[in-house]
Amino acid sequence: MAPTLTGATRLYVIVGDPIAQVKAPGGMTAGFAARNHDGVLVPVQVAVDDLPSLLAVAGNLKNLDGIIVTVPHKFTCFAHCASTSDRARFIGAVNIMRRRPEGGWHGDMVDGLGFVGAVRAKGFDASGKRALLIGAGGAGSAIAQALLAAGVRELGVHDADASRRDALIARLNTMGAGRAIVGSPDPSGFDLVGNATPAGMQPGDPLPIDVAKLAPSMFVGCVITVPAASPMIEAARARGCNTSTGTDMYQALQGTMLDFFLSSAKKS
Amino acid sequence: MAPTLTGATRLYVIVGDPIAQVKAPGGMTAGFAARNHDGVLVPVQVAVDDLPSLLAVAGNLKNLDGIIVTVPHKFTCFAHCASTSDRARFIGAVNIMRRRPEGGWHGDMVDGLGFVGAVRAKGFDASGKRALLIGAGGAGSAIAQALLAAGVRELGVHDADASRRDALIARLNTMGAGRAIVGSPDPSGFDLVGNATPAGMQPGDPLPIDVAKLAPSMFVGCVITVPAASPMIEAARARGCNTSTGTDMYQALQGTMLDFFLSSAKKS
Repeated sequence: MAPTLTGATRLYVIVGDPIAQVKAPGGMTAGFAARNHDGVLVPVQVAVDDLPSLLAVAGNLKNLDGIIVTVPHKFTCFAHCASTSDRARFIGAVNIMRRRPEGGWHGDMVDGLGFVGAVRAKGFDASGKRALLIGAGGAGSAIAQALLAAGVRELGVHDADASRRDALIARLNTMGAGRAIVGSPDPSGFDLVGNATPAGMQPGDPLPIDVAKLAPSMFVGCVITVPAASPMIEAARARGCNTSTGTDMYQALQGTMLDFFLSSAKKS
Repeated sequence: MAPTLTGATRLYVIVGDPIAQVKAPGGMTAGFAARNHDGVLVPVQVAVDDLPSLLAVAGNLKNLDGIIVTVPHKFTCFAHCASTSDRARFIGAVNIMRRRPEGGWHGDMVDGLGFVGAVRAKGFDASGKRALLIGAGGAGSAIAQALLAAGVRELGVHDADASRRDALIARLNTMGAGRAIVGSPDPSGFDLVGNATPAGMQPGDPLPIDVAKLAPSMFVGCVITVPAASPMIEAARARGCNTSTGTDMYQALQGTMLDFFLSSAKKS
């Protein structure tokens, strides 16, 4: 928490529904304080039907400087932004918005940066490597885009839904010059393996990859935060792999989000 | 501040314009924590033109439990409440709203209770006493109503605007059985003197009462918070009077506001 909360404290919110599970209020508010910014970020639980009304008035709230967006609002908020980053347009969604000096909101989608940042924080440089990504949904799309932007040499994509997989690969290759290819649950030959599916959140979930084929030199990352170490991460660690968890991803993401809010530059 | 701020923390806001001067965010948030309630109160700066839109969506924000209202929104918010207390209806304004279990907002006007609470906290019992109130505006009206409700025997009201003074006296006497009378800046014969005007906020302001006629037995209260002790309060102390300041009033008010938000009873 910030050391003080006053009438002059700048306001930030995270919008979602449900909202009780989000970690941004405590983490971001502490992050503002650590950067000597007098700000507080609070949860706002708003239903899909009420989001447009909230966004309409949010732009006029004079002390509201930023919005973090979580499920199910990332697509609606994208449409509400006056400007967005290239990566937000690639996904067609935003997870963070800041007030523009000229009015309206600038949106970005930094979910994928959190994954790449967590991998980097654990000492693994994805540049020039072969990466395998499991899951071509919203989180997977953002991570795939970020991995290509981080310079992976090749990106294998696997999804149980082949049409969703192929659609993502096709879109990635509009930006990645053919670096995205069809993958499978077999990590053989990859340097970096990422899971962007919920497989591992519930007891009895199947593992998203064939862990028997992991080599100790491979880096394994996961988006799951509960449990703190997913069964895939536990198995990777047991085989000697360096790993990053969903919590590591959130930690990296928080730094990126603080940068986004506190940046005076308006470049995307 | 609350010891933790999470996605499950219940949300409260104070709406006003300007907003930087309000003290409720820090005080109320600490108050929630002291009462073991997981809540945070943050400032929301909203213009008069945007208040209706904000109120319209506020009722649908699932984790927003309460609203404190400050200048210039107290009258508009009164009109927006589904139910209000007798004292709010007397003033035609609310300064605090809580979500009703059956939907909509219940509003109250507790500004006057803060003044009476501060006087009581300083050891003075207004019941059966003669009180003189300077100022028949919004704050004065609330304090006058609260003093009568606290059982003062007689209430003198003074205001530079005689028609505003007489209108308040007439309305007070619909509830006070003739206890409200015309007052003057002369405190002679009164036991309790209250200033509800801004006289004393700016250097060179005239004193709201004739301090030369204060007796040490008189209690003198003031609504001004800046400076911490108004010139009237300084003069009263110099003459041996017991006093309460605007800050004392705010302290008492905070306890009342916490009671209001955390009460499960829906009585007014």
